[in-house]
Amino acid sequence: MAKRIGVYPGTFDPITRGHIDIIERGLTLVDELIVAVATNPAKEPLFMVEERVAMIEKEVEKYKSVRVEPFDGLLMQYVLSKKSSIVIRGLRVMSDFEYEFQMALTNRKISPGVETVFMMTRDDFAPVSSRFIKEIARLDGDVGHFVTPSVRRQLKKKYKSMEKSR
Amino acid sequence: MAKRIGVYPGTFDPITRGHIDIIERGLTLVDELIVAVATNPAKEPLFMVEERVAMIEKEVEKYKSVRVEPFDGLLMQYVLSKKSSIVIRGLRVMSDFEYEFQMALTNRKISPGVETVFMMTRDDFAPVSSRFIKEIARLDGDVGHFVTPSVRRQLKKKYKSMEKSR
Amino acid sequence: MAKRIGVYPGTFDPITRGHIDIIERGLTLVDELIVAVATNPAKEPLFMVEERVAMIEKEVEKYKSVRVEPFDGLLMQYVLSKKSSIVIRGLRVMSDFEYEFQMALTNRKISPGVETVFMMTRDDFAPVSSRFIKEIARLDGDVGHFVTPSVRRQLKKKYKSMEKSR
Amino acid sequence: MAKRIGVYPGTFDPITRGHIDIIERGLTLVDELIVAVATNPAKEPLFMVEERVAMIEKEVEKYKSVRVEPFDGLLMQYVLSKKSSIVIRGLRVMSDFEYEFQMALTNRKISPGVETVFMMTRDDFAPVSSRFIKEIARLDGDVGHFVTPSVRRQLKKKYKSMEKSR
Amino acid sequence: MAKRIGVYPGTFDPITRGHIDIIERGLTLVDELIVAVATNPAKEPLFMVEERVAMIEKEVEKYKSVRVEPFDGLLMQYVLSKKSSIVIRGLRVMSDFEYEFQMALTNRKISPGVETVFMMTRDDFAPVSSRFIKEIARLDGDVGHFVTPSVRRQLKKKYKSMEKSR
Amino acid sequence: MAKRIGVYPGTFDPITRGHIDIIERGLTLVDELIVAVATNPAKEPLFMVEERVAMIEKEVEKYKSVRVEPFDGLLMQYVLSKKSSIVIRGLRVMSDFEYEFQMALTNRKISPGVETVFMMTRDDFAPVSSRFIKEIARLDGDVGHFVTPSVRRQLKKKYKSMEKSR
Repeated sequence: MAKRIGVYPGTFDPITRGHIDIIERGLTLVDELIVAVATNPAKEPLFMVEERVAMIEKEVEKYKSVRVEPFDGLLMQYVLSKKSSIVIRGLRVMSDFEYEFQMALTNRKISPGVETVFMMTRDDFAPVSSRFIKEIARLDGDVGHFVTPSVRRQLKKKYKSMEKSR
Repeated sequence: MAKRIGVYPGTFDPITRGHIDIIERGLTLVDELIVAVATNPAKEPLFMVEERVAMIEKEVEKYKSVRVEPFDGLLMQYVLSKKSSIVIRGLRVMSDFEYEFQMALTNRKISPGVETVFMMTRDDFAPVSSRFIKEIARLDGDVGHFVTPSVRRQLKKKYKSMEKSR
Repeated sequence: MAKRIGVYPGTFDPITRGHIDIIERGLTLVDELIVAVATNPAKEPLFMVEERVAMIEKEVEKYKSVRVEPFDGLLMQYVLSKKSSIVIRGLRVMSDFEYEFQMALTNRKISPGVETVFMMTRDDFAPVSSRFIKEIARLDGDVGHFVTPSVRRQLKKKYKSMEKSR
Repeated sequence: MAKRIGVYPGTFDPITRGHIDIIERGLTLVDELIVAVATNPAKEPLFMVEERVAMIEKEVEKYKSVRVEPFDGLLMQYVLSKKSSIVIRGLRVMSDFEYEFQMALTNRKISPGVETVFMMTRDDFAPVSSRFIKEIARLDGDVGHFVTPSVRRQLKKKYKSMEKSR
Repeated sequence: MAKRIGVYPGTFDPITRGHIDIIERGLTLVDELIVAVATNPAKEPLFMVEERVAMIEKEVEKYKSVRVEPFDGLLMQYVLSKKSSIVIRGLRVMSDFEYEFQMALTNRKISPGVETVFMMTRDDFAPVSSRFIKEIARLDGDVGHFVTPSVRRQLKKKYKSMEKSR
Repeated sequence: MAKRIGVYPGTFDPITRGHIDIIERGLTLVDELIVAVATNPAKEPLFMVEERVAMIEKEVEKYKSVRVEPFDGLLMQYVLSKKSSIVIRGLRVMSDFEYEFQMALTNRKISPGVETVFMMTRDDFAPVSSRFIKEIARLDGDVGHFVTPSVRRQLKKKYKSMEKSR
């Protein structure tokens, strides 16, 4: 049996409990899981890609078979360069579904050998996107339900430093 | 019986006939309704928050139990500060539904005691968002079906003044 | 302030933890809540209407302001006969939304004075319909996550008696 | 590395080109794939379960690692009895999504260790369900785009024999 | 310019104001419109196909270019036999959309030369299906908003005669 | 019979195989089809409106009855000025549907005489939007499945010139 390598791509700005949930579930499917952190300068992330990689690494250090890497460029080229043929995506809500489907069908035309598989986030983490979490943290609300204590501290620190620099 | 206070939050840039419809329906549910106008500087509204509050006040002055207030910060904190436990939202279309659901479930995690309830806009007002109305007004189309004559005049004035200042 | 009476209609075949959750939330909105159990002979319910009413009564006996009643005929006529102008419905998933919307807009045309309001079920109860629960119980699976111990016993008894009578 | 066993459950009444597509894609994910054919007497299938199993076996005989089996009872119990922890489902359209999600979340509550993963059907096979195909075949239309020549012959034969027996 | 012939297929059990709205809009698109009434014995319609044809004929007699015909068998074969290449369908709600899309894509594979075009029902007629209307009429509710006075009388008569025959 | 003129509006930044597919299908419906290219400065298109018009003209030069024109301002005013009463839109996915519906119902209130009709894109072109195609081209991926060779060359050239000017 060949070793199965999966890629779980995203911006992870920052990593949420929902993301961690998908990483754990993904390990059922593959022998090695690469969390691929998109540089994504167009989206103007809150955290730099190095910060995002470090935050994820801290959360997943207990999983021997998970690796975290930054990437830019075309996802399909990255996946093939890693000798992977499985892309893992989490689905939270219906509107995700259409976007993800469109993306996956487009990717399939580019690289027919790579399969995108969808897994479901734990339902009580389901509706909360990174965007909402950042909005709540910016307004000084409590994001402890949505991210780990460590990520929560980082969010606080980031918004405090931004306030000062204004 | 305790007095029921409801909060109807939004950007209201500007208030539409659909919004007025929800305000009227909301009065079936609560004894006092606070229309909470989000400052929302990130969205770069067309009208300043003071203008938006004034426009709504004019439309609802006939309802004794409706109050209009600007707010910023976290909605849930605002709602609790008003001794309210009911947030009212209008649903127009399916895509509203998912966004609203995501928002409401997130809010519930932050403040479990506050309930978000959804009411349906009158069907002939249903599909028209403030964004579309502004686009039509900007192109000098007639928005009389979607807003009251008073709001329509304000939109005209606003776009005329913007044209001059260019 | 007038007393607000709400009607929560359904088939409740049988009552689920999700239904109980909506009943509790509904009490935030109204001073008296009538759980209206549709006779629904067309749907061939598993439990007779008297059984369904009794099961709900047992679950809600701790709430002084909840009443359980069977009803048949047109919902809007029933609501008006109860001097209510608020119908409460729970939303679980997107596909509910469209059906509920269609129903509510139709009802509004028949009785413009009655408002249908939607509340969200607790997310971990969200996806489970009575139909799924019955299917699991029929195949002798454990439905303890979805219904109370008392309802679970009734489901077991019902399917055992059906097996014998075959 | 442990051997990964996947279960692809369905009624397969009859197997379509879309189903075959998912079976092939599923083999990317697992080392052994069990096509589990639901007896489903409640749905009154056109073909008996033995016929359906035989039709699938014929289509997949070239794949060494695919097995076809009838099953009844609770899917999750069947999956665990096969030492599998992966259920594979194909998604064709949005409305599938909600039903599948509801099913998968319900199943997760029953058996938290089993993951349901979703794969996308090839887009030109996407919208065609077994129900539509049977309707077209019954009206003597050409179903050659949707099923293999062998299944097409079986459908013709079945409807011819039903006509005679009337 | 060739004469454009359109087919508007449906069960029309009975014809609603929404259907009439689509017929009128369809005349913008085609020179001749055939309302094709599906026999549909599987759905067990309330009205016999002859009754349904007669009810539609009465509603559209003012339109010279509309013809009403019963049909059974495969829609695409019927359309081609009428020298038409345009099928018109009304969309009311999102869930229609998926079903209609699936149907239309299936039909396109069978007859690539026939186009299915979708038109929107007038918004205040939008959510009301024949199924809901029959349910309301059966429970003796007022269906005057949804059907013409003539159809309303027929519904009353039908349900009265069914009651007697029980 | 009057000549039917249709308008197919869009940004076309750039024209895709899916757009060309809709243009061809649109010719079944109308005697003359105007492809109306929105100037859309707010969206900051990649190609100038003159470039977009030229690219489309090249793709449709074989169709005698297709004309390409830039337009700005209100779509409905443009349509009426062309003596057209038919707007043609392609639907790719569910989320298109809601946006398009909202737009079309808004437009209907402004110009009740103009009908918006929806046609379905060929399914294997379905999920690919101009936005995705540009993203792939920018990352130097192959867009040959989604656009014609000529458009592909233009995309390459455009991104090369942008790189240089940085």
